[in-house]
Order: sequence, then structure tokens, then C-alpha cells
Amino acid sequence: MYGPLDGTVPEPIARAIGSVEAPDPAWSDRVAARQDQLTMPPGSLGRLLEVGRLLASLQRADRPVGGPALVAVFAADHGIAEAGVSAYPQAVTGQMVANYLAGGAAVNVLARRAGVEVRVVDLGVRHLPGGLRDHPALISRPIRAGTSNALEGPAMTRSEAHAAFAVGLDLADRWVAIEGFRVVALGEMGIGNTTTAALLLAALTGSDPESVVGRGTGVDDAGLARKREVVARTLDLHRPHFADLWDLLARLGGFEVIGLAGLAVGAARHRALVVLDGFISTVAGLVATTVCPLAPGSFLAAHRGPEPGHRVALEALGLSPLLDLGLRLGEGTGATLALPLVAAAADILRDMATFESAAVSGPIS
Amino acid sequence: MYGPLDGTVPEPIARAIGSVEAPDPAWSDRVAARQDQLTMPPGSLGRLLEVGRLLASLQRADRPVGGPALVAVFAADHGIAEAGVSAYPQAVTGQMVANYLAGGAAVNVLARRAGVEVRVVDLGVRHLPGGLRDHPALISRPIRAGTSNALEGPAMTRSEAHAAFAVGLDLADRWVAIEGFRVVALGEMGIGNTTTAALLLAALTGSDPESVVGRGTGVDDAGLARKREVVARTLDLHRPHFADLWDLLARLGGFEVIGLAGLAVGAARHRALVVLDGFISTVAGLVATTVCPLAPGSFLAAHRGPEPGHRVALEALGLSPLLDLGLRLGEGTGATLALPLVAAAADILRDMATFESAAVSGPIS
Repeated sequence: MYGPLDGTVPEPIARAIGSVEAPDPAWSDRVAARQDQLTMPPGSLGRLLEVGRLLASLQRADRPVGGPALVAVFAADHGIAEAGVSAYPQAVTGQMVANYLAGGAAVNVLARRAGVEVRVVDLGVRHLPGGLRDHPALISRPIRAGTSNALEGPAMTRSEAHAAFAVGLDLADRWVAIEGFRVVALGEMGIGNTTTAALLLAALTGSDPESVVGRGTGVDDAGLARKREVVARTLDLHRPHFADLWDLLARLGGFEVIGLAGLAVGAARHRALVVLDGFISTVAGLVATTVCPLAPGSFLAAHRGPEPGHRVALEALGLSPLLDLGLRLGEGTGATLALPLVAAAADILRDMATFESAAVSGPIS
Repeated sequence: MYGPLDGTVPEPIARAIGSVEAPDPAWSDRVAARQDQLTMPPGSLGRLLEVGRLLASLQRADRPVGGPALVAVFAADHGIAEAGVSAYPQAVTGQMVANYLAGGAAVNVLARRAGVEVRVVDLGVRHLPGGLRDHPALISRPIRAGTSNALEGPAMTRSEAHAAFAVGLDLADRWVAIEGFRVVALGEMGIGNTTTAALLLAALTGSDPESVVGRGTGVDDAGLARKREVVARTLDLHRPHFADLWDLLARLGGFEVIGLAGLAVGAARHRALVVLDGFISTVAGLVATTVCPLAPGSFLAAHRGPEPGHRVALEALGLSPLLDLGLRLGEGTGATLALPLVAAAADILRDMATFESAAVSGPIS
């Protein structure tokens, strides 16, 4: 529906997009042959072997690593929350940022168990609890204190959309190219962002709003009806005016979703594995893919949750998720739960004995 | 089809079976209320919350632990392997025991990543590579050097079936009651044991042999046809003579499957979580359930694999597996991959902030 590029993308973004390469299938094949030598019936570790081949093709190594990994939580507020589309007040975005920084949220607990870092990025939180702006662990890159209400006009300007994307690209440079993280899990927080994700998904895929709007954090029936109406009206307002892809993104928002798309493209550029989490981060992956068609060669879908748009976004990406645990929290929790599987997939290639090394007989021929 | 007990069970087994209690729903309810106070939309961690409630009800604690965990690999040989039902020669059972003890098999690699111990138990391996019998890490409890061929007569005697079950009960006493493990994952190794598991499953559930026989380690079409015929003929031979449940088990085998059933009952008795792995260990769980109807209150199904009987066994147990990753290796690999999820489920209850403690606003009322 929309081409990956148009003429007005700032040069650093265009250069980053242009430098993403496809995973190398030669490494995948080479590693598949090695997997068949390991002491198990060929193929018997199923999708774990598939993840191992993906890591190998990204890292161009037959003994790939499954880490170090981090989970990035990009937080921002959404003007469309004014339309009453969430079960929670907007203040919760900033309160949860405080919770992430204090280590008390679900993603913190799961990341500690997985042995991975959480990086919290403010892309435009409206109300940060007192003193938090100076918290040493908060990566403060606000575009603006929340988007405008897309029900009334564009969520942001075109240059704000570019700026949000560039934050993601820049953090990928730092985290992957400089610090050496090899696995980047995408998490997010933003009251109202299932509505923004539904808007983007419907606009990018032509899906019916009914099929991509769900209960998010848990709106009741009246809230769901209102959310559907808000999405339909917002699409009706903007669709006739989409000039190109970046105009679409700017009109619909949000800062953290576009930022995560930039992070996904930047991580793909540096051949890190990008682990998609829930509905919103999967839509961010779809945005990244629309901007940069080679990016999804680096993607792994961690899970599928009950939010209906999550399934639609995964299908649009052609990705089959690893987990199906009824998760609908976001903030990177599902992606974090998949990280031990990623690590295990690399371990299998690095540490298992072969039929020859362990003196185990092969199949009866 | 068969009652849980008959009059000829040795007294220690009858006592163990009789001492299994149902999980306490009061603890599950209490913990569900606490989960709703944690900083996330109620229910949004899906099945992880369900696992947390199960741990709480077993441990009678609102801050349950998710470990320490071990994975038990019970190994034995099967006389029915003589009928050409496996893609691998029988020597592989013992060779893989050597591989487990050397730390080179898939389960070892996955257990190291999960931070859990592997315990290897010889219940009746026919050919142990030289010197292995004295390996300090091998738990040597052979009933006999492999079962008899069930295609020609009973796989074992009734007292051998009791002895295999008693090994599992005894190890549960040591590992759970004495050493303090709180999670026990069931793994196995035994060339021919998908055939044995298919026999047990068909006999216990009345399933058609066609629906429970699969390719196991990877037999070709001719091998699959032979395996189906072997299962059908073996059932035809024994079914008219099943005197009771233990007679059925003794006729069909095998030592490691019945041993794992004993381990499951023993672990349930001490209120440990029992994590079922693949087709064979899930059939062991079904055997445990037939012997002791309260045992499955302690069970968690780790995964569902492509072996057709695995699905049938899970349905017979009424269990919904956590993972679906195309795993068909056994040896405890799928159960081991689920252990980080179990640990995470406990962490969520122990370490997450509440709305009150983190000063996060609740839903708009």
C-alpha cells in the first residue's frame, strides 16, 4: 500500500534503512547440517533449531550467541487517550515509568530471572512523577509531552515522526554497535497505545477497524464500542489525506511506536536479533517492515496474545510466534519470557555433543 | 476403565498413593486476589498467573517458590525394540546415558541454561558402555537389563512393575522430602519407548492404535506401518488377559515409564510440582493418574509435540500444555524449557510491586 521510502526522509534515516542486509542463508544451511550431527533425532528440537539457524544467519557464525540481550521499554503518551479509550488514567504511563526504574514491574521481574537488562526510554511521557526526569537510569529523549489527539488532527508533525524514529536508530547504534548487545527485545508503555496501534495496523494493512480493536488493558463493553468508534472516525478523518508513509505515521502516532520501529531497523542494521513482544511492538515491527522491507529478516515473534490485532499484525508480518500464553500486558514481558528460549537455541549449537564426539550410534540405515 | 487400586499392591505403594492430597483451592483463591493487586491489568500475564496459583496451592504459600528444580532422566530398554520399531539401534539407550553423564545431550545443555540439575537413573538399560555402571553420578536402580518383548509375552512380572514404581517413590522421597526440590521434571530415554507408551495409552484410554502411534525418533513409512502393526498385535495378545491395572502395566511395560509414574506420585505426595515433558512422560503421568487419581493436581504439562499420542495423552489428562514448539526429543527437554516459566511465575508473586506500593493509579471506575 505504501512504498518503503519517499523523497523527504532525512539522510541519516535513509542511510540506516539502506544499510540493512538480508540474513545470509548460507549460514543457515551450514548450521542446519551441523544440527543434524548433534545427538538427537534430526529436527527433534523443532522451533529451537529454527531460532538457532536465525541467530547463525544474523551473526554469520556456526556457534552463534544468544545474548547479551536487553529489553527496551519505550514510553510515551497519546493524545487520543482523551477520547476515553483506556481503562486506566493517563497518569499511569509516568507512574509505570517510575515502577520500571524502581524495578517493581512485571518486565523487571521477568528480566531479572532471564538475566537481561531493562532500558527505559522516555519518548514523550506527559506526567513524570516528581524527580524522575533526573533519574540516572532514565534515558530521556522526549519528542514532546505526548502526541496530539489524532481524532482532531495529526498526532505529530512529520519531523517529529522522523525524530522519534531517529531516537530508535541512535539507541540501536549505542546498544548494539557500541555496547555489543546481540538480542534486543521491544517493550512499550503508553496509556492509549492499543488504540494507536490499531490505527496504524488498520491503515497499513487495510484491515477493518473491528478486526484490530480489542479491550487493551481491559475496557468494558461500552469502552470497547467507544474505542471502535474512535478508531473508525480517526481513520475516516485522516485516510483521505495520507500523502505517503511518513505522513500516515505522523498523523496516527505514537512516539514510542515509531521509536521502536527505528530501534528495530537499527538493530537489524547491526544484525542483532529483534524480539517482538505484544500487539504494540508487533505493530512497531510492521511499521519497521514498511519503512525497511529487509528488517524482518532479523525479527522473532515472541508470542501471540488475545488482543485481536496482535494476530493480524503477526499475519501481516508472516511471523509464527514462539509462545501462546494468553499474555496481554506488553511492556516487553512476552519478549522477555522468550529470551531463555533464544539463549537455549544458541547453547544447543555451541554445547551439544555430536554423534561422533559422544560415540552414539546413528540411525539404522 | 481400571480402578486406581487393587488388593495386591504392596503396602508401601498403597500408603504412598493414599497420602496424596488435592491442592488446596483456598490458597489458589487467596493468591488470585493478590495477583489482582500487582501493577498490571488483572489477568494480563495469562497462563503465568495460573502457574503461580498452582504453585501457591501446592506449597500453601502466597509467596511460592519456583525451585529448586531437577530434571530426572529415567532410562531403560524395551524388549519390543526387537520388533524393529525404532529408527535407532538399542545400543543408543546406554550410549545416551553416557552422554547425559558427560553433560553433552540436549537436556544437559538446556538444564545448565535453566540452572537446574539433571539426575540420571538406570531402571534397566541393556548395554551400558564400559565403566559406566560405576559412574558416581549414575543412580543405578535396574529392575532387569531391559523388559521382555511384549509382542511375545508380558514385558515384566507384576512384582517388577511394583519395583519400578517403588524406585520412583523412593527417589521422590529423597529428592523432594529430604533434599528439598520443589519442582520435578520428568524425562526419559529408552529406544522403543514410544511403542511402549502407545501400548499403555491405547490400553488405558481405549484409543485406536492408529491414533497413538507416530514416528517416534523418525521411522520411515515402512517403519511406521510396522510399528502400528506391532502395537495392534501386542494389544490383541494381552487385552483379553488384563486382570487389573498392575497386570496391564506389567504386560505392556516399561521400567522407566512405570518408574516415572512412581516419581510423579511420590513428588505429588510431597506437594512438589511435577512437570510433564513429551509423549512418554505424559503417558507416565497418565499411568500415575490411573494409579492415584489425586496425583494430577500437581501436574503441569510443559509442551505439546507432533507425536500424535502426546496430544491424546494430554487430552486424557485434561491438561493444556504451556509450550508448542514442535519438540519431539523427550529426555526431559521440553519440561526443562518450561522451568524458567515456572520460576518466573513464582517471581511475579514474590517480587512485583502492587498498585499501592508503587503508587500507580488503578482503573478508572
